[in-house]
Amino acid sequence: MNIKFSKRSDTIEASEIRELLKLIGNNNIISFGGGLPSEETFPVEEMKVICNEILSDYGGKSMQYSTSEGYDKLRKIIIEIMRERGINTDIDNILIISGSQQGLDLTAKAFIDEGDTILCESPTYLSAINAFKPFYPKFEEIFIDNEGLDPEVLEEKLKKSKNVKFLYTIPDFQNPTGVTLNFERRKSIIELANKYNILIVEDSPYSELNFTGQHLPPLKSLDTEERVIYLSTFSKIVCPGFRIGWICASKEIIKKFVLFRQGSDLHTNIFSQMQITKFFEKYDVKAHIEKNIAIYKNRRDAMLNAIKADFPKEVKYTEPKGGFFLWVTLPTYMDSKELLKCALKNGIAFISGEAFFPNGGHKNTLRLNYTNISEEKIREGIKILSDVIKENMLKNN
Amino acid sequence: MNIKFSKRSDTIEASEIRELLKLIGNNNIISFGGGLPSEETFPVEEMKVICNEILSDYGGKSMQYSTSEGYDKLRKIIIEIMRERGINTDIDNILIISGSQQGLDLTAKAFIDEGDTILCESPTYLSAINAFKPFYPKFEEIFIDNEGLDPEVLEEKLKKSKNVKFLYTIPDFQNPTGVTLNFERRKSIIELANKYNILIVEDSPYSELNFTGQHLPPLKSLDTEERVIYLSTFSKIVCPGFRIGWICASKEIIKKFVLFRQGSDLHTNIFSQMQITKFFEKYDVKAHIEKNIAIYKNRRDAMLNAIKADFPKEVKYTEPKGGFFLWVTLPTYMDSKELLKCALKNGIAFISGEAFFPNGGHKNTLRLNYTNISEEKIREGIKILSDVIKENMLKNN
Repeated sequence: MNIKFSKRSDTIEASEIRELLKLIGNNNIISFGGGLPSEETFPVEEMKVICNEILSDYGGKSMQYSTSEGYDKLRKIIIEIMRERGINTDIDNILIISGSQQGLDLTAKAFIDEGDTILCESPTYLSAINAFKPFYPKFEEIFIDNEGLDPEVLEEKLKKSKNVKFLYTIPDFQNPTGVTLNFERRKSIIELANKYNILIVEDSPYSELNFTGQHLPPLKSLDTEERVIYLSTFSKIVCPGFRIGWICASKEIIKKFVLFRQGSDLHTNIFSQMQITKFFEKYDVKAHIEKNIAIYKNRRDAMLNAIKADFPKEVKYTEPKGGFFLWVTLPTYMDSKELLKCALKNGIAFISGEAFFPNGGHKNTLRLNYTNISEEKIREGIKILSDVIKENMLKNN
Repeated sequence: MNIKFSKRSDTIEASEIRELLKLIGNNNIISFGGGLPSEETFPVEEMKVICNEILSDYGGKSMQYSTSEGYDKLRKIIIEIMRERGINTDIDNILIISGSQQGLDLTAKAFIDEGDTILCESPTYLSAINAFKPFYPKFEEIFIDNEGLDPEVLEEKLKKSKNVKFLYTIPDFQNPTGVTLNFERRKSIIELANKYNILIVEDSPYSELNFTGQHLPPLKSLDTEERVIYLSTFSKIVCPGFRIGWICASKEIIKKFVLFRQGSDLHTNIFSQMQITKFFEKYDVKAHIEKNIAIYKNRRDAMLNAIKADFPKEVKYTEPKGGFFLWVTLPTYMDSKELLKCALKNGIAFISGEAFFPNGGHKNTLRLNYTNISEEKIREGIKILSDVIKENMLKNN
């Protein structure tokens, strides 16, 4: 038959990243694409003990339907995590979701009417764009520097934009740039949200993976008017395969989200909620995270040192203090998609930058990931990539 | 702050069932509400072996990000399940989802434009209504008798309705009525779909829980034009807590669904996909299901026999040949919500029927579940419910 999809279906396109990941498969490519944590950081042996205990302690309850709000024991653990991040909150402010990606879908459903304006960093998280687009918003992008988004530019956008629903931001070790929003700007952004009466969606998947030990307060901790919808996840501190994240927001918003998620997927896998809960109950999660930070910091160092040694001076890059990614800006006459084709021929993958801009453009940018690859391979890969860049510069200039 | 939700947010309401389930909690109420499988049917001991093997065999891969399409080994198992149900299909026609509920959300996103007509049984599955409503369709209800929906009524609706996107139907042991669509009608419905160029969403969570041994062919098996989007789940044959279901549809539709789900929740929990896979690889699932059928059939018998013995003759009810539910129609002057209040006071819960009709009405109906309660308690509960009904009949007549 001739299928007639919804008009909404025209808003979404195949993710270059996922398509690329499929292509890469099990080949010998050195991949700086994707955004996978390293499997060596996952508590595999601990999970053997944990699964056995769950099934012995809870039996069929660990396999039964459960509540849309989430497993109460895990919600209480999240309250503790939030307290350590400087946010005092209550169980009714916490909704467990199937990965923090689901928080973006719920936010879109509950807030975006056609034509509403969404403010976001430029570039921003690719799958946030894909979560919001089917609900027909306009995106206003705020270019970021090494200290995150500039509140002055934000205020200009707020003055001239109509029907602004929310600012979507990743303040810590942003995806894709690795940049962190400074403290003064955090305060200013909250003041602007209050002044212009908008919500803030604070996406915080990477905040615990901090290489400096100096933690900046989340926007949510500075929020006195319940304007911040805070999203986080166990994907980067335990593992992503269980798909367990959470939302912390006002009770009124959580109630609305619960209604939408009953139509979306009823509730989050209860067995995996128990797996995460037991891991926190039985093991020293702080020590676990410290160990992971050490691995990722070494890889970040390896990548930065290789870039400093090898990249031509015309190429600019960010220096992330945590998280998963580093952002590269090539000379404007270069096209990172063309570069990617040459790089793949030489056994190197990365993500070209254009897809991270909701309104397109910026063809001369690309994202590099350093978490799922050994230091040796990072050095080897950056050397090859540098050569490919130099070759392309000559060709194009 | 004064929160401004999307207009879409007005379309959804708190589910009476979930609110009721919360109220019931751990009290001594005999609940015919909800739709939970019995925990004694879950393979708890087998899961101990399975979890250990997954972690030994696959290590960190069982906890890592995975593909949006689903775990290939499980997709291949599903191809076998589909073949046994009379449907020949291919791996690219299968998408693993986070419970078949997610299939309804994806269907809504990919197909419903504002004002489109959705045809459905009257009554129909409550959470399908909640999945579709946020996308502003019109619902045209087709009343069903003991043989399912009448194709003649369907054709009348098709003739007079504009922009019909799909027929949503649960042909086997329908939720909430327990009714099964007969073979002749199945053929006629496929013919009508071809004639009027519409899609069919065939929701099939209960088909394996068949108390008669006589299986009718799924609509999907009669479909020669790739019009049927078939949804099913492991929730009723293994357990619901893992949230693993699937969609079988044309490759073009699956591709579109994959794009939408990347924005929705990226992918389904890989650990639990492996749990289900190992269960099928290592154990005799057919024998497992047969054992469960025996338990549920005895409970259905207990409920039907008690109803026949106790209910006043003015009360009508369906006689399901499988699945989870039985549907009761009270005299039209009665209101099942009022009845529910009296029943709860007497320690009995059920779901009043109005919520299962997308356009409301039918206050004199209610749904009874028999799967998660012992035969003894079923007999005890139906006796009490009968007395409450009789009392209310006297009061209202």
